[in-house]
Amino acid sequence: MDYRPRPEDSRFILNAVLDAPSKLRALAPFAEVDEALQQQVLEEAARFVAEAVAPINRGGDETGCRFANGEVATPPGFRAAYQAFVDGGWPGLSAAPEDGGQGLPTVLEAILYEWLSAANHGLTMAPGLLHGAYACLKHHGSDELKALYLSKIATGEWLATMCLTEAHAGSDLGQVRTRATAQADGSLRVNGGKIFISGGEHDLTPNIVHLVLCRMHGSEVQAPAGPKGLSLVLVPKLLPDGTRNAVHCERIEEKMGLHGSPTCTMRFDDATGWLVGEPGRGLAAMFVMMNAARLHVALQGIGLLDAAWQKADAYAAERRQMRAPGAVPASRGSEAADLIAEHPAIRRILDTQRAWIDGARTLAYRSALMLDVAAHDADAKARERAQRWCSLVTPVLKAACTQQAFHGASECLQVFGGHGYVREWGIEQIVRDARVTMIYEGTNEIQAIDLLVRKVLPDGGAAMSAVLLELRDTLDASRDADADVQRRLAQLRYLGTTIAMAAQANPVLPYEVADDYLRAVMLAMLAWAWARIDAAEAPEAERAARAGPAAALRRWVLPEFDMRLAIVKRACEGVAMTHHAAKTPAAAR
Amino acid sequence: MDYRPRPEDSRFILNAVLDAPSKLRALAPFAEVDEALQQQVLEEAARFVAEAVAPINRGGDETGCRFANGEVATPPGFRAAYQAFVDGGWPGLSAAPEDGGQGLPTVLEAILYEWLSAANHGLTMAPGLLHGAYACLKHHGSDELKALYLSKIATGEWLATMCLTEAHAGSDLGQVRTRATAQADGSLRVNGGKIFISGGEHDLTPNIVHLVLCRMHGSEVQAPAGPKGLSLVLVPKLLPDGTRNAVHCERIEEKMGLHGSPTCTMRFDDATGWLVGEPGRGLAAMFVMMNAARLHVALQGIGLLDAAWQKADAYAAERRQMRAPGAVPASRGSEAADLIAEHPAIRRILDTQRAWIDGARTLAYRSALMLDVAAHDADAKARERAQRWCSLVTPVLKAACTQQAFHGASECLQVFGGHGYVREWGIEQIVRDARVTMIYEGTNEIQAIDLLVRKVLPDGGAAMSAVLLELRDTLDASRDADADVQRRLAQLRYLGTTIAMAAQANPVLPYEVADDYLRAVMLAMLAWAWARIDAAEAPEAERAARAGPAAALRRWVLPEFDMRLAIVKRACEGVAMTHHAAKTPAAAR
Repeated sequence: MDYRPRPEDSRFILNAVLDAPSKLRALAPFAEVDEALQQQVLEEAARFVAEAVAPINRGGDETGCRFANGEVATPPGFRAAYQAFVDGGWPGLSAAPEDGGQGLPTVLEAILYEWLSAANHGLTMAPGLLHGAYACLKHHGSDELKALYLSKIATGEWLATMCLTEAHAGSDLGQVRTRATAQADGSLRVNGGKIFISGGEHDLTPNIVHLVLCRMHGSEVQAPAGPKGLSLVLVPKLLPDGTRNAVHCERIEEKMGLHGSPTCTMRFDDATGWLVGEPGRGLAAMFVMMNAARLHVALQGIGLLDAAWQKADAYAAERRQMRAPGAVPASRGSEAADLIAEHPAIRRILDTQRAWIDGARTLAYRSALMLDVAAHDADAKARERAQRWCSLVTPVLKAACTQQAFHGASECLQVFGGHGYVREWGIEQIVRDARVTMIYEGTNEIQAIDLLVRKVLPDGGAAMSAVLLELRDTLDASRDADADVQRRLAQLRYLGTTIAMAAQANPVLPYEVADDYLRAVMLAMLAWAWARIDAAEAPEAERAARAGPAAALRRWVLPEFDMRLAIVKRACEGVAMTHHAAKTPAAAR
Repeated sequence: MDYRPRPEDSRFILNAVLDAPSKLRALAPFAEVDEALQQQVLEEAARFVAEAVAPINRGGDETGCRFANGEVATPPGFRAAYQAFVDGGWPGLSAAPEDGGQGLPTVLEAILYEWLSAANHGLTMAPGLLHGAYACLKHHGSDELKALYLSKIATGEWLATMCLTEAHAGSDLGQVRTRATAQADGSLRVNGGKIFISGGEHDLTPNIVHLVLCRMHGSEVQAPAGPKGLSLVLVPKLLPDGTRNAVHCERIEEKMGLHGSPTCTMRFDDATGWLVGEPGRGLAAMFVMMNAARLHVALQGIGLLDAAWQKADAYAAERRQMRAPGAVPASRGSEAADLIAEHPAIRRILDTQRAWIDGARTLAYRSALMLDVAAHDADAKARERAQRWCSLVTPVLKAACTQQAFHGASECLQVFGGHGYVREWGIEQIVRDARVTMIYEGTNEIQAIDLLVRKVLPDGGAAMSAVLLELRDTLDASRDADADVQRRLAQLRYLGTTIAMAAQANPVLPYEVADDYLRAVMLAMLAWAWARIDAAEAPEAERAARAGPAAALRRWVLPEFDMRLAIVKRACEGVAMTHHAAKTPAAAR
């Protein structure tokens, strides 16, 4: 069974829960993007994903990418599917019309990519990097570079990469050694090696545009050590005159999953490139699209979890094993055993994942809307508020949604029993594919540090408090569920203050509890999302179908909130002891 | 880096924590098995595992088993390694000397198999099934069958399988359809198909002895429907006269991992077999070794987690990325970055897994000791107490240790960043291999139901209370850590009573909270184990090295205990509501 997007599910969250249509229409570029057009785009996207992308997922995993003589062959069907993607105008869905894009809201593109990832994570990696490259070039590229590359990237005619990681420089980009040396004609000579480059080489497009993080060398600019010395350089596979540039793929990785996406080791041997943005401001140039890129990974997580849930839900509705305690006899008929969907342990797994999917979608779609607001709202204050939301919520979604993708998909695998462990059913592929999302685009541990240490604590928790208060203001305290969420939001605000105070005595403490803090934020926000879902208008049958996931959230998911609070509080109370403990392990080993 | 057993770690738990040598010497068959002999066996086992088994693990995953024309070729090196295993007398370590075994305690065999699984889970599957088949045949086989098969199995000269699962009968063995028809000569004709048969066909031994769960057909015995109608039949690949029996492998599964072990679909076409035990008592005959088999799976989990920890710990002690907050400057030297082992998020991952490994080992080795006591103690009361421990603690260890193997190995993968996702480092193989342990030998959900519904509740929690009180009596309430454990054990006893009462109003409730109950039991027992570890005599350097894991247990692991308690209590309090919710989901879908 291949993944099938269910546009009605996403539309309910977009329209009924988030009131997206009216919010989008208030933004000048989307004044004409009415609900009917949005619906049409989503329906067509769903059809494209189901028909062209999902069916080649399994083969993509089994055949994988093949490397020979510096070239990479993508799995059967990938070229045709990607060409159809380009022909349909999908790569440029949110790109500016003047660059050949469709000029549609980011939030629609977010949903498209959630579905694409759910249907075929490997194939989706290829265009998934386009949007960052486009934004980066659009904001920082010279007019000459833009003229040559911007529309090619916007339309997906040429694919793009982000070349950051080196063997010794993973999370620590300050250690990057690839060198760019200025030439008399204004171009750069790039030398060095990069690893883990998704789509570094492939047969999907004739040209590939690499954005390479380098250290500048040369007479005028000498790069200092560390991240401040890094510059961003555009290095195309084919030079503007059509000749082959000296950038080559040396090998591709054998990985746990994601076999449909080539992970390349790249060599730059006097390759020709051009600076994007200011020298020494390479990280800043890349980080312009970091929130969008991390949200994209969160959506991969949501999509993969939905794909796993779809498979498990369908299997549980057909497979019969043993008598289920409390099963409704009418469903049994003449069968000797009950549907496994009726067994409480299976019900719990399925409803819990559904609670995560719908809650996380609400938060992720809201974040995508905020990207639209941040880019297009006429009111500077509104743009600032939206930016604040994105800055604080994106790392939360990236870490929590990808963790749930892996762990939740593994739970869905469990629904299949032994059948889940064999390839045939495709569920184990989802678990393998999902695992990488916890690592790339900043490991989940780094997301937690980004959130707490770099964003929440520096202003004493003021920005995070403002976000939490905004959420509180959407609630109606006369509703029980809303009052419960309000309580959690208040607890979170207090928690931020508690950590800030403890951190004064022990600066290591925030690094130790960053994961717990992030989890607590996610769980409170999930509770908020479900309060909004619960308050949204929906037909009775739909409301009834949400009763199981809503109960699962309350009974099985949210208790972790109190646990995380307790962990952080105890750590803060024991600051003196903690400080001592943090000093000992390394010495004691 | 291949796995290397560390016998000193296991010996510390066996001797200093569990006082195993004196306990074993009190059992008649082990009166001569002194500490020196135990140590020698473990040292030799460690050497064998490190030299012969660990180095072919990676190749076993990459090459996997190959199926062609009904035959299965195991990966390169597997035959030689298995032959060395047989030649060393390892298969019969705990088998009776009269059957060609070494007559050593089960607890030593448990440690051997923990290490084997850690070093090469795929290869270890082959002999891993011998012990169940040996026990089954020894207890239930006719003299004639024993004469033909018992010593061959005890010595590992022939390997054995357990043929239970059928396509429509996984967790629900009552649905088994394979038929055994009585013949005039006392033999049986077996017809049917089985799936997921580990080692159903291979090239490791000339003969393979299948123990097949069948439904009897024939003039005298007509099997009733359900599990009561099942019988156990021995079907050898080669008949006693050397001719080929009509049992064949049709294909092997492509799996997520465990590629070194062939998972076979088997056909029985008028195959000849002989009854083992009474007709209709097949499940009882198999369940005689269920506690040992499930403990074996728990030990696989512990071993795989230890293997993952070893890799991550070694990597973290070499890899440098960024400045670590709170790092000891002396460790930095002239390096631009600190060891990742000094980063709090990595420290937390490593220490948490270490806490699980040592705590779970303490409980698993204690269980293995209890198997020895249950089999050999002169005192019937002592045997009964040991049996009670095994019955109640085995499902807890099976579920909790295998879950931690998968999730903890995934955490260890995270330590490697992007390198963890590529095959090269071998850590992703551990995650894939570990996943199956949550499924086979009874899914973890079934373990939880077995514990709570089948074992704890029927006597109102009396047996579990007795086990918890036994643990309490080993503690010294004047020690803070011990008092904390006592509190948890008391809470658990109360929890059992709470569930028993709520179950009277809602019989579905125990099925809903069985996982939480099992987790709470495991966490309290982990706390007990670490209190014992803490109380054991050890050199100061070793004590210091355990400070990190001990703190990790207290800070990051045990808070889940309170969460599980809260989940169960709330479910019990809301019994009326729960009852309603359990009735709705199926109807609402």
